[in-house]
Amino acid sequence: MKTLDVQLPGASYPITIGAGILDAALREVVGRHGKELVLVVTNETLAGLYPGRIEAALQGLPVQVESCVLPDGERYKTLETLAHIFDRLMALEANRQALLIAFGGGVIGDMTGFAAACFMRGVPYIQVPTTLLADVDSSVGGKTAVNHPLGKNAIGAFKQPQAVVMELDFLRSLPPREMRAGTFELIKHGIIRDSTLFDFLEEHRGDLDGMDPVFWEEAVARSCRVKAEVVAQDERETDLRAILNFGHSLAHLIETHAGYGSVLHGEAVGAGMLFAAYVSHRWGGLDSYEYGRIRDLLLPLTQPISMPPLDPDAFAHLLMHDKKAGSGTLKFVALNGLGHAVIRGGTAPAELWPMLQDFLREQPQVLRVATA
Amino acid sequence: MKTLDVQLPGASYPITIGAGILDAALREVVGRHGKELVLVVTNETLAGLYPGRIEAALQGLPVQVESCVLPDGERYKTLETLAHIFDRLMALEANRQALLIAFGGGVIGDMTGFAAACFMRGVPYIQVPTTLLADVDSSVGGKTAVNHPLGKNAIGAFKQPQAVVMELDFLRSLPPREMRAGTFELIKHGIIRDSTLFDFLEEHRGDLDGMDPVFWEEAVARSCRVKAEVVAQDERETDLRAILNFGHSLAHLIETHAGYGSVLHGEAVGAGMLFAAYVSHRWGGLDSYEYGRIRDLLLPLTQPISMPPLDPDAFAHLLMHDKKAGSGTLKFVALNGLGHAVIRGGTAPAELWPMLQDFLREQPQVLRVATA
Repeated sequence: MKTLDVQLPGASYPITIGAGILDAALREVVGRHGKELVLVVTNETLAGLYPGRIEAALQGLPVQVESCVLPDGERYKTLETLAHIFDRLMALEANRQALLIAFGGGVIGDMTGFAAACFMRGVPYIQVPTTLLADVDSSVGGKTAVNHPLGKNAIGAFKQPQAVVMELDFLRSLPPREMRAGTFELIKHGIIRDSTLFDFLEEHRGDLDGMDPVFWEEAVARSCRVKAEVVAQDERETDLRAILNFGHSLAHLIETHAGYGSVLHGEAVGAGMLFAAYVSHRWGGLDSYEYGRIRDLLLPLTQPISMPPLDPDAFAHLLMHDKKAGSGTLKFVALNGLGHAVIRGGTAPAELWPMLQDFLREQPQVLRVATA
Repeated sequence: MKTLDVQLPGASYPITIGAGILDAALREVVGRHGKELVLVVTNETLAGLYPGRIEAALQGLPVQVESCVLPDGERYKTLETLAHIFDRLMALEANRQALLIAFGGGVIGDMTGFAAACFMRGVPYIQVPTTLLADVDSSVGGKTAVNHPLGKNAIGAFKQPQAVVMELDFLRSLPPREMRAGTFELIKHGIIRDSTLFDFLEEHRGDLDGMDPVFWEEAVARSCRVKAEVVAQDERETDLRAILNFGHSLAHLIETHAGYGSVLHGEAVGAGMLFAAYVSHRWGGLDSYEYGRIRDLLLPLTQPISMPPLDPDAFAHLLMHDKKAGSGTLKFVALNGLGHAVIRGGTAPAELWPMLQDFLREQPQVLRVATA
């Protein structure tokens, strides 16, 4: 078991990571908060895989435990689904003495955190992520949101959890494709800010396809530490935190253009990181050796992603809809050496378009898309 | 013109109050923020009364000004209506360079502030209140929300505006009934925390029915100063801020039980304050002279409110649905002398019920409701 703290101005909370740690860690934090009502928010898939799992962990504590089971999938990450959480809380006559537990992946975590931010203008919540992606990415840092039909995570809040409990046993029920998708975000943290984590992952690359709990505990903890440090320095993403978006400009485009649900977020980020590393190499921020190391770690993990054709206008339009975009240009996260991401403002889509075409020629197995 | 500052940890913002001050005050603050897009959120009634008023004030500034016109009324203060604001922002391809202006009463202010809290996880907004109630109550302090079918303001956020611009000329188009309703909240600030404000209002009680801008500028400024001081000490309502809910326990019950829309919030607060003063007198916190002063200032302003019959169970249930309620008891805001409100935790509905019956007998013209 490993624990680390996210230290923010005015708040700090523990992350507990390990196999078989759920009951003790969750009982401790729920007991400490002494609320009257716990609402476990989860989805139909997890409710079927682990029926009553959270309720069992909390048995005997002097708290009413209820659940709210949502449909499974990114397409349900909407204001309409969020309203179901509020409906359930109101039907239970919940007040500020309520505590929410997000039991699921990133979609459940984002929606539960946002509901906790808004219900009665704020009640506490705990993250119990069940996917690798949620472990290393969405469950830490307090970004919560739902999607709008015209933009991912367009409506949300910054709302830090009271604790994050990462039970690695849940990863055993994770489909291999989702495990792989989470691995990209884990590796990302090494690429952008911790070259020793990158070294460790390179050295243990064989473990990236396995389920060795010793490896994953170490890898997840080191990856989370990077994210926690970045968030601690810039909770509201005024500058530094934007480096966590490495690979995400193209990833958001891929997710929107390929259609929500046809590609996993982590898969899109994997492709986006390969492109961002390529762009960094072209801009001179990465030498051939470093670019090669990143490419060689990521490429074997990728599966080709197919998208409808793109032209320069569609490319620019899709990139600019990204909420990081200012007028006409965007902030592109690039590398200035392995382990050192930088934000390059004023990047025009027209500058990236020919590089995307070159990248597609050089790495045809990453993205299958006709460009004209 | 009067200005005062709301000083919060990590943020402060100006309130500008006066007749004929809109253009200069609004241009200054919008110009200072230098955003690319301003979205004016208002309702159909105001769009008809003051077509293009905000746009005219901002003419010539290098900013795109758009509007979002919502239906008028408390019954539209919902997540569904909120979604219209997000739809408009997304259709305009707005990003974090957007600035929202709430041009309306409390409903518009609450929804616009909440939309600003959530859009892209937070964009700035400015309050331009058009009602007396919004001037002295909802536009200051950063409480934003929408209603849930089962609870008023159940879903919201704390989100401070960048500035509040109170143009008193807008009060000239306010129906007398709404002017009266706002007057109750204005007087409330004297009752709970500023006996010299109460003295001033007593002395100028004849002006409470008129439109003398000199009187209103002074009265609104002094009332806002009380609210700003309370909010500065306790933004998130962990303790002190709850005194602003003086009169609101019964007011929320009245609004819910009489049905949203049939009674104005301020009217319900007027009745609730008379009851809370009566309870305070019974508890020994107010002597007969002080209770008499409060009663004599408020009573002439009230109109009888009719409600369906109440029994003790319905009374308790309606009171406990109030979000200030803990398990079985509630926090009741009482007076310990005129100008000094205190929060009395552990108040049981069963203790208040017979006092409500006595109050109804003593002041039959306030509430018309059969009790059994």
